[in-house]
Amino acid sequence: MSGRSPAEPRSAYPHFLEITTRWNDNDSYRHVNNAVYYQYFDTVVNQFLIENGALDVERSDVIGLVVETQCRFFSQVSFPSKIHAGLRVAHLGNSSIRYEIGLFRDNQSSASAQGHFVHVYVDRTSNRPVSLPSQLKTLLTPLLTAAKEA
Amino acid sequence: MSGRSPAEPRSAYPHFLEITTRWNDNDSYRHVNNAVYYQYFDTVVNQFLIENGALDVERSDVIGLVVETQCRFFSQVSFPSKIHAGLRVAHLGNSSIRYEIGLFRDNQSSASAQGHFVHVYVDRTSNRPVSLPSQLKTLLTPLLTAAKEA
Amino acid sequence: MSGRSPAEPRSAYPHFLEITTRWNDNDSYRHVNNAVYYQYFDTVVNQFLIENGALDVERSDVIGLVVETQCRFFSQVSFPSKIHAGLRVAHLGNSSIRYEIGLFRDNQSSASAQGHFVHVYVDRTSNRPVSLPSQLKTLLTPLLTAAKEA
Amino acid sequence: MSGRSPAEPRSAYPHFLEITTRWNDNDSYRHVNNAVYYQYFDTVVNQFLIENGALDVERSDVIGLVVETQCRFFSQVSFPSKIHAGLRVAHLGNSSIRYEIGLFRDNQSSASAQGHFVHVYVDRTSNRPVSLPSQLKTLLTPLLTAAKEA
Repeated sequence: MSGRSPAEPRSAYPHFLEITTRWNDNDSYRHVNNAVYYQYFDTVVNQFLIENGALDVERSDVIGLVVETQCRFFSQVSFPSKIHAGLRVAHLGNSSIRYEIGLFRDNQSSASAQGHFVHVYVDRTSNRPVSLPSQLKTLLTPLLTAAKEA
Repeated sequence: MSGRSPAEPRSAYPHFLEITTRWNDNDSYRHVNNAVYYQYFDTVVNQFLIENGALDVERSDVIGLVVETQCRFFSQVSFPSKIHAGLRVAHLGNSSIRYEIGLFRDNQSSASAQGHFVHVYVDRTSNRPVSLPSQLKTLLTPLLTAAKEA
Repeated sequence: MSGRSPAEPRSAYPHFLEITTRWNDNDSYRHVNNAVYYQYFDTVVNQFLIENGALDVERSDVIGLVVETQCRFFSQVSFPSKIHAGLRVAHLGNSSIRYEIGLFRDNQSSASAQGHFVHVYVDRTSNRPVSLPSQLKTLLTPLLTAAKEA
Repeated sequence: MSGRSPAEPRSAYPHFLEITTRWNDNDSYRHVNNAVYYQYFDTVVNQFLIENGALDVERSDVIGLVVETQCRFFSQVSFPSKIHAGLRVAHLGNSSIRYEIGLFRDNQSSASAQGHFVHVYVDRTSNRPVSLPSQLKTLLTPLLTAAKEA
């Protein structure tokens, strides 16, 4: 694992969402299962978009398809901890967005896990890539930071 | 559905836990999937037990096995709503506990769903029923209410 | 638990679906979590409807809303077992259907868990109950059996 | 997304496991949610280890901790499709294993998604890295292939 970038501090993320863990997030090892971290990723990204009017699941003509996700795990989390999910935007492309997410347990100062989540925007009927809506770019620009992750 | 008891108010429950919904709680109908409600049930029960020292997953000699659960659904809930999970104890038996749970969406005054969750306490090695530990009975007695559900 | 009906044999169910378990179906007790059983219920019902042309999630004008589910647990199941989900119809009402499901582990002859799942059919726009489509009644009549469960 | 390696054929994977999809694998977009793909990853890896005697969740002294996972998504999958999960080993280190997984829908010849899953073996009590057990190396060597993924 040489060459891995280290766990980041909370200050690396401009936006946070609190997520509660659940009894069955823990798997047979009694820690939150690795797949569940991606539920947290999905939640912080989509809740930000929905609450800011940039995504209406029933009506939006263009939607973000997930084309790549990655997560690196630094320390274990167990129910009933709370998760603080930090979100930043590392890249706003013509039709794609690279989000980076850090997950912090309770009062922990460095991330338990961090990773990325790439959306490509497509027309919902044709499924072909489209330019990012300008409203979305305006919304995300304040979350755009110099990427910290390799 | 004639004969169903109606959705209850928050006052029917002495204890509450806030649970955050997740993007993928919603299924193809864009509402929280029925199976996910039982994740909320499990969470409010076990978090109460863990935070009050009545369950240590690694070390407890006796544990509660789930022998029956039920849920009735009154109104739909969708991500990104918050859930307030109300908990009461309807019956403290010799070796079993019947919990009743009501799930309330955001500021809603009547339950979106309500149901029950029955634990039978067993010895962890033999898997045979045991009497409820006295510490557990003491903890749960304040949550014991006249059962409202049929 | 006196008065509980006993675990049923496979012959109590006219239709079966094989479902594979997953690593994170197991919770901290290293058995399939109770909420996951309802994922199996949902799957056997909806897969039967979709594969027989009675449900098109994108286009059906009327859909089944889940109004009540229940499960009783008899013996534990753990990943990597296979589940054989048995399905029957206990009641075909004017606008509702009561399905009953038994879950059988690997080569086990009696159910590990059994329960019910009630759909009320509604108009998708108005959300008001409608009569069951005649195609659906025709499809389900062969699964209609004398209810075995209390 | 320039520079992405293309979707691979089934021949790129020496071992396969069939996994059944579930109704609630589909999210609001009516396709299998991205986080669920990692449940499939976890399942193909751990089922291989358990069925070949290389992992006993209750008793193994050393276990694999997940330190990194990644998935790239090429085409959508929806319930009730079946998944054929292909598995290979890209790297057997001193204490770590890099698995690579391709997920194929029904009779599809190229992967719907592919990614990696890195285990570091640790002593279960101290949580410190240990050398891979020789039994495990022997088991995995036949799955070791020239890595195809960047």
